[in-house]
Amino acid sequence: MTDFDLLGIGNALVDVVVQADDAFLAEHNLDKGGMMLVDPERSDFLYTKMGPATESSGGSCGNTMAGFASLGGRGAYIGKVRNDEFGKVFRHDLDAIGVIFATPSAEDGPSTGRCLVMVTPDAQRTMCTTLGAATSLTVADIDADQVQASAAVYMEGYLFDPPEAKAAFVRAAEIAHAADRKVSITLSDSFCVDRHRAAFAHLVDSHIDILFANEDEIVSLYEAGSFDEALQAVRGRCEIACLTRSEKGSVIVAGDEVYEVPAAPVGKVVDTTGAGDLFAAGFLYGYTQGRDPATCGAIGGIAAAEVIAHYGARPAVSLSSLL
Amino acid sequence: MTDFDLLGIGNALVDVVVQADDAFLAEHNLDKGGMMLVDPERSDFLYTKMGPATESSGGSCGNTMAGFASLGGRGAYIGKVRNDEFGKVFRHDLDAIGVIFATPSAEDGPSTGRCLVMVTPDAQRTMCTTLGAATSLTVADIDADQVQASAAVYMEGYLFDPPEAKAAFVRAAEIAHAADRKVSITLSDSFCVDRHRAAFAHLVDSHIDILFANEDEIVSLYEAGSFDEALQAVRGRCEIACLTRSEKGSVIVAGDEVYEVPAAPVGKVVDTTGAGDLFAAGFLYGYTQGRDPATCGAIGGIAAAEVIAHYGARPAVSLSSLL
Repeated sequence: MTDFDLLGIGNALVDVVVQADDAFLAEHNLDKGGMMLVDPERSDFLYTKMGPATESSGGSCGNTMAGFASLGGRGAYIGKVRNDEFGKVFRHDLDAIGVIFATPSAEDGPSTGRCLVMVTPDAQRTMCTTLGAATSLTVADIDADQVQASAAVYMEGYLFDPPEAKAAFVRAAEIAHAADRKVSITLSDSFCVDRHRAAFAHLVDSHIDILFANEDEIVSLYEAGSFDEALQAVRGRCEIACLTRSEKGSVIVAGDEVYEVPAAPVGKVVDTTGAGDLFAAGFLYGYTQGRDPATCGAIGGIAAAEVIAHYGARPAVSLSSLL
Repeated sequence: MTDFDLLGIGNALVDVVVQADDAFLAEHNLDKGGMMLVDPERSDFLYTKMGPATESSGGSCGNTMAGFASLGGRGAYIGKVRNDEFGKVFRHDLDAIGVIFATPSAEDGPSTGRCLVMVTPDAQRTMCTTLGAATSLTVADIDADQVQASAAVYMEGYLFDPPEAKAAFVRAAEIAHAADRKVSITLSDSFCVDRHRAAFAHLVDSHIDILFANEDEIVSLYEAGSFDEALQAVRGRCEIACLTRSEKGSVIVAGDEVYEVPAAPVGKVVDTTGAGDLFAAGFLYGYTQGRDPATCGAIGGIAAAEVIAHYGARPAVSLSSLL
């Protein structure tokens, strides 16, 4: 028996969510659907140009952990905020849903990281992130006892952007495997894969049990000519690869088996922010409960369907009530 | 020709919006549907007990001004935030919708005021406000030029809670009337009327051209036995009294005339926060455009119907597109 089903490690961010149109993205040279890293000056400039916004806790892995707890899983989180108002908001929102977040806040240095999330009328989100305090996550923030006490560790590929966090990531994976725990990662974003392709490919071969990637990300990782080619490339490199395909559902590659899981029904898609994060939450909840891969994929689909039907990247209802 | 159609003066607050159930309200002795003033310690305590939340700019009058601008009106706002993260959010959201907000931020003292908004499954909101920096609004913050340059001034009754703001309020009314401008107020909340009944009654008689009140508030103001009795009590005391009655629409008392305006259709009512604020926005938009009282009431109803169909107290779509 472990203390936690899942320990997440990620960039702790507050989302600043705004409605925007394609003209706004074009005017400011923003790649639609992607996540761009920007410096604080650029972030402030874009913010002054944006319409009225709503703030809520985000961060890819933070969203996953909120979803995991909403499903009933026992979760913990490692990430770095500043002791400012947004840092307190981030901490509150994990505490409030029952995720243990013990990493101390930074007492000085940059403010809590933020992500400007521009949602276009087609429900796609385009993101500009200033990492802020998240860049101060280091190996020292990895609590070995907590890693050993967790059935699985989950990390976001975005962690490879702040250099110190990458080292923390690898250290956590080593501790986990030494304790016979599982290690999982999401590739996060195809631009992120472009930035760190060789490191990611090496990591998957050496440290990862469960890989999450969408179609663009897995194709980019192996520089494949098609989704099927990418699927063949990842086969055998980790215990399970979860390949998500938006409205086409997901493909779960587990050893010699390939499971095609249809997407869960959803009414109007309002904001796709958090879809991948919540799929991972659902899959890992099923996995840590001992469910088979197809069932895990179905739970992932249900969690993703809930979050894309409203603004914001965390569940608006108790996900356990949807199962 | 004036520079502004409407100048709003209010308590500048950021809303912390959370879903809650009746048991939570009962456990913490919160009066459902009301607004309670709490000290920072009580606010922090309740926050730690609340579920995950979403932050957005609020404040009754701030909401009204956002709605007024969304309808196409030229608005300005006077209120006090601190120069902290929430203060910057509040300022951004008014700037972004085109409301001129020139009041300088407080450089020290309490942080930007916040309102914990607990929304129950029946769509009612129960609010706990810590005024914070809003208590530092004084007569010195009233820009006489701006008041004289505005066709009408609108103030929230909640301004009577911080004592200095009440003086600012009266000063603004005097400047406005000396320049032949209109002065309007909302009674804000029946608990607020209880706190300031005599002062409000005197104010209506001496300074107010257009009064906004819901059924509970107008009944409380005149300690009337019924809505009809309250309606008779207010008649003749100001140019126009707008009495809102939720799903029953509104009753507009203008001189000898009484207009009954049906509520605008709304699908599922999600969160009634901002309903009164947006009614005032719509009514005053019509009024400053020279429309007749019944049309003004209808515009108010349309604006209110939009805001209660989603979480949050400011419009999610351009209100001018709904007219």
